[in-house]
Amino acid sequence: MPPVPQPTGRNAKPRVVIIGAGFGGLAVARGLAHSGATVTIVDRQNHHVFQPLLYQVATAGLSPADIAAPIRSIVKRQKETRVLLADVTGVNADQRRVLLSDGTTLDYDFLVIATGARHGYFGRDEWAEHAPGIKTLDDATRVRRNILLAMERAETIRQESLPDRDEYLTFVVVGGGPTGVEMAGAIAELTRHATDMDFRFITRRCLRVMLVEAGDRLLPTFPAKLGDAARKALNGLGVIVRLSGRVTDIGDYGVTIGDEKIATTTVIWAAGVQASDAAKWLGVDADRSGRVKVEPDLSVPGRNDIFVIGDTASLVDASGRSVPGVAPAAKQEGTHVAHCLLARFTGSRAPPPFRYRNWGNLATIGRKRAVAEIGSFQISGLPAWLLWSTAHIYFLVGFRNRIVVGANWLWNYITFERGARLITGMTHVARHDA
Amino acid sequence: MPPVPQPTGRNAKPRVVIIGAGFGGLAVARGLAHSGATVTIVDRQNHHVFQPLLYQVATAGLSPADIAAPIRSIVKRQKETRVLLADVTGVNADQRRVLLSDGTTLDYDFLVIATGARHGYFGRDEWAEHAPGIKTLDDATRVRRNILLAMERAETIRQESLPDRDEYLTFVVVGGGPTGVEMAGAIAELTRHATDMDFRFITRRCLRVMLVEAGDRLLPTFPAKLGDAARKALNGLGVIVRLSGRVTDIGDYGVTIGDEKIATTTVIWAAGVQASDAAKWLGVDADRSGRVKVEPDLSVPGRNDIFVIGDTASLVDASGRSVPGVAPAAKQEGTHVAHCLLARFTGSRAPPPFRYRNWGNLATIGRKRAVAEIGSFQISGLPAWLLWSTAHIYFLVGFRNRIVVGANWLWNYITFERGARLITGMTHVARHDA
Repeated sequence: MPPVPQPTGRNAKPRVVIIGAGFGGLAVARGLAHSGATVTIVDRQNHHVFQPLLYQVATAGLSPADIAAPIRSIVKRQKETRVLLADVTGVNADQRRVLLSDGTTLDYDFLVIATGARHGYFGRDEWAEHAPGIKTLDDATRVRRNILLAMERAETIRQESLPDRDEYLTFVVVGGGPTGVEMAGAIAELTRHATDMDFRFITRRCLRVMLVEAGDRLLPTFPAKLGDAARKALNGLGVIVRLSGRVTDIGDYGVTIGDEKIATTTVIWAAGVQASDAAKWLGVDADRSGRVKVEPDLSVPGRNDIFVIGDTASLVDASGRSVPGVAPAAKQEGTHVAHCLLARFTGSRAPPPFRYRNWGNLATIGRKRAVAEIGSFQISGLPAWLLWSTAHIYFLVGFRNRIVVGANWLWNYITFERGARLITGMTHVARHDA
Repeated sequence: MPPVPQPTGRNAKPRVVIIGAGFGGLAVARGLAHSGATVTIVDRQNHHVFQPLLYQVATAGLSPADIAAPIRSIVKRQKETRVLLADVTGVNADQRRVLLSDGTTLDYDFLVIATGARHGYFGRDEWAEHAPGIKTLDDATRVRRNILLAMERAETIRQESLPDRDEYLTFVVVGGGPTGVEMAGAIAELTRHATDMDFRFITRRCLRVMLVEAGDRLLPTFPAKLGDAARKALNGLGVIVRLSGRVTDIGDYGVTIGDEKIATTTVIWAAGVQASDAAKWLGVDADRSGRVKVEPDLSVPGRNDIFVIGDTASLVDASGRSVPGVAPAAKQEGTHVAHCLLARFTGSRAPPPFRYRNWGNLATIGRKRAVAEIGSFQISGLPAWLLWSTAHIYFLVGFRNRIVVGANWLWNYITFERGARLITGMTHVARHDA
């Protein structure tokens, strides 16, 4: 193992480069606020996104700005922290350099890779075009446009007495984890309310919202009782839940489950993730999902100046359990890496190996419905929904966003109204297309 | 002149088609709510936009959803009103048919064309690519992306000690009317605050915001005293105001004023408008800006079943003055057409010729600065700004939007914070490009 690197900057301050301003990357930056290190956060976007609420943007409940904040704004009080909007293309670990897409480089003494994950299509990348997932604001506004346009087209067809085209009113969500459950519930609420109130020719009875899960129950990481509660709540919203449903094909026409073809113009992917390219950049081993296997201190084997955290890292922690790919784990890992770095800067003893603290699991199904597991407690229904709302508003980055999201939710709750139902980024109205 | 058309629908209800859901089109629809007519609103977008505040979206003060509302939502209580998302390509006035881009048609008994205006580049359409204006939400988010990306690029260049590239920090607004004045003031506030608080390498002194006006004063439609007050307020924000400045060229490199080339990556067009294609659709005379010359009742000469209103119409009203292309005029014209139609439906006497009531003119220059003319009163500074804020919040469509915009403004006012500073729709980070 190479020796612990010595700061080489002109003022001998250690230079820490963090790639990715998600929950993990920001936790590292926050932990190093008073460290004396020069921290540079590199991200392809200028904003941090509160990913757990992206499905609300995709279903027109919230606006993009409600769940995102400029990275510069988040770290503005940390005067030694810099932000760089750039595309990372690789890492030269021997020279301690990050390579950027414009050909320039960024030198570091310590590197933290927190680049997250994208959707994984189990090797069927051609599905991506027809079944987008939601990981970024642009993903979410694209899905929102798809859903709202499909309803507009169905209304046009009925209005002009053209032959019925049910595929516009069929919405299929693939994947029965928390994101899939939340998406399916939110689509059902959005479309039902819109047909009841705003449309004249299409009705609630024309709608078909399906949730397809390959396993034999929803929410596989939750206790079985809560998976069942989620299924019942979804049924109550009119969602058709298909368990043990294997997606065998996705195309222009729609989706095939087993041998059954379902004609639909809206398929949403919430089934699998694929880690970012960190393993390729570093030339190290990755697991099946592309995640880098890290040491108990979250460093890369053989490179104690490089750390990988969040959805990009694979680790069985000190308690013997796999750390899950969720926001709280990424945050805790980020804080742990900051502690490790502080110890290195001051020469003090390294913290004990990382251990993930699971405070609980939450998923919401719609207005007043949610499921939650906190320690050995399991709750569902309205109390779980109140807990979920409070927790999410609390954890939103930025005080202003908390107020706006809180006000929006309260407003939606009272009025059933969705203020963000805008179709944007549409350069051309293509109607009646397949 | 052809006879007044008789309803031909199967239930003998007159069929009114309104093209365009701007201020004018919506005023017609609202006026016909209890008329017994079947009203169809056709628009290329699914939402109405409060255009006077688009510049706030372009400068990250408000989110798109704050100033827009789905058309369906606005008319949801008018059960005889339908909304169709479609592109109009023409009108067959003899057959009373609207032609749509997908080849279908829409029959009408009465037609109202309220399709507004786009930017006009005085015959230099190649400028459009380099100098976008703001007429739609997509326009506004594009300009927002341009401004925010320019600052990010400037910061990157300084951070990497590359040669200075001042064009990234030069912002040029063309046109000294209300939109240009408001844009220039808002850009100055946005960029100054961002460099002061969020950026580490670029400073307020690097910024150059220019407002170019061809005439010898700002706000030519306002009293001279207020144009002067606006110029002083803009100077106070660091804006360089160039009067009698003729733009002779716009390109990749920036903009040329007279013979002087100004290198900039951000040019915003607020100089001229060109009416929509209504005159072409109808095969009738248009003025220099493409507007249809209408009769005193806003109908098209020789076609008393077709009305043209708003920015698409050209009229010297009953008081002998040209009706200006502003939101209140479009609204008043829409209400007038609804009254004309109601009179026709019931066979009662037609209302007197249209007369525009000018309640006043308002323009804002930034935080606490505005100019206003109400009747013979002229005010500027904080009182004008308070009046402007109140008026705009009041006129926003939809109660929810009023609350959200009010809260956002209050928040921005207290904190100097801009919550909507998101760069979205960026598929690739291109840096250091010219």
